[in-house]
Amino acid sequence: MSVITVERKVLEKNDAIAQQNRESFKKKNLFSINLVSSPGSGKTSIVERTIYFSKNKFGIAVIEGDVQTSLDAERVDAYGVPVVQIVTQGACHLEAGLVRDAFRQIEKNDFEVLFIENVGNLVCPAGYDLGEDLKVVIVSTTEGDDKPLKYPAMFRNASALIINKIDLVPHLNCSLEILEKNSLSINPSLKIFKTSCTTDEGITEWCEWIESKIKR
Amino acid sequence: MSVITVERKVLEKNDAIAQQNRESFKKKNLFSINLVSSPGSGKTSIVERTIYFSKNKFGIAVIEGDVQTSLDAERVDAYGVPVVQIVTQGACHLEAGLVRDAFRQIEKNDFEVLFIENVGNLVCPAGYDLGEDLKVVIVSTTEGDDKPLKYPAMFRNASALIINKIDLVPHLNCSLEILEKNSLSINPSLKIFKTSCTTDEGITEWCEWIESKIKR
Repeated sequence: MSVITVERKVLEKNDAIAQQNRESFKKKNLFSINLVSSPGSGKTSIVERTIYFSKNKFGIAVIEGDVQTSLDAERVDAYGVPVVQIVTQGACHLEAGLVRDAFRQIEKNDFEVLFIENVGNLVCPAGYDLGEDLKVVIVSTTEGDDKPLKYPAMFRNASALIINKIDLVPHLNCSLEILEKNSLSINPSLKIFKTSCTTDEGITEWCEWIESKIKR
Repeated sequence: MSVITVERKVLEKNDAIAQQNRESFKKKNLFSINLVSSPGSGKTSIVERTIYFSKNKFGIAVIEGDVQTSLDAERVDAYGVPVVQIVTQGACHLEAGLVRDAFRQIEKNDFEVLFIENVGNLVCPAGYDLGEDLKVVIVSTTEGDDKPLKYPAMFRNASALIINKIDLVPHLNCSLEILEKNSLSINPSLKIFKTSCTTDEGITEWCEWIESKIKR
């Protein structure tokens, strides 16, 4: 018996449930995003601005993942969209089974886009399929331009990258050019958005991209 | 057989090696810090500023932990102190065995303070003793003031908190007062430093505190 064996079994079980989730999402014609980043990169803020700008164009529901508290779900709930909080109580990533249980609580609502906001962690969530259409990784300019090189799995497994908090760049020692170059060196097919949830720069492009992905 | 059983075995093995590390550090009269935070909160910058201001007062050595790259060790190496890079190749935290192997490479040098910079992750490193005297958690003001509530284990297990990047507060929606209050609500005995590695505010207090801990 070894840890690796057990981890493989856990992953196999996770992937099987993720496949069931994928079927459930497909039945409902959903476009689903697994939103991943470090703590405090702005996952919830991106979800909030997306709802604010798009809620009259398409229906959105949100599954929030956190180690503790329901603070994020409370923030999203204020926008009047269906939202469920998963509290992992110490676990460092969401698993497909948790998402399945959360989805059951909101699936009767009418929506076309599902955000699954993962636990703030740039390492562990990379390995866990939740049944989503794609992963979007957020990196804040305040984290520095070397993060794609230091945490490559997350950037490799994502389809899109949001470089957030671009309004702060003048105050930072962070080059957007190097950050983009480093990201594309890990994953050349990354679709890149540059946003600020304070000035709303780049949010329209992001929302239009999501709209283009909706399965109508 | 369950995952929990295996995890317990892994932790027991880790704790036994951590205890050996503690003995090795003690023999050398070291003050050792396990530095933990999210990616990009400024762990390496804090180490750099500490070396810059203190290297004429006490000897410092550094063990760097990263998922990939030796970028951090290269930064520290420029200051001419003993440094080893641990590349975890995907693993989300340092373990005591990795620190033991790294320590063997630098222990013959003359130093009184050992920084162990953990992988950037506000969840997983909380549970792994490396044999250090104490954990110091860094949180950047850019991450928002709710992080202690959302990632409580790390704040509970730390002896000191560095609130970093305080020069950016005027540009952020982050209250230092609420961040401190939230931190102390999780761990009332946290010693708190407020720093900026850009303006060097608060670095002297931090360096003096480390100096006061040296076992001479």
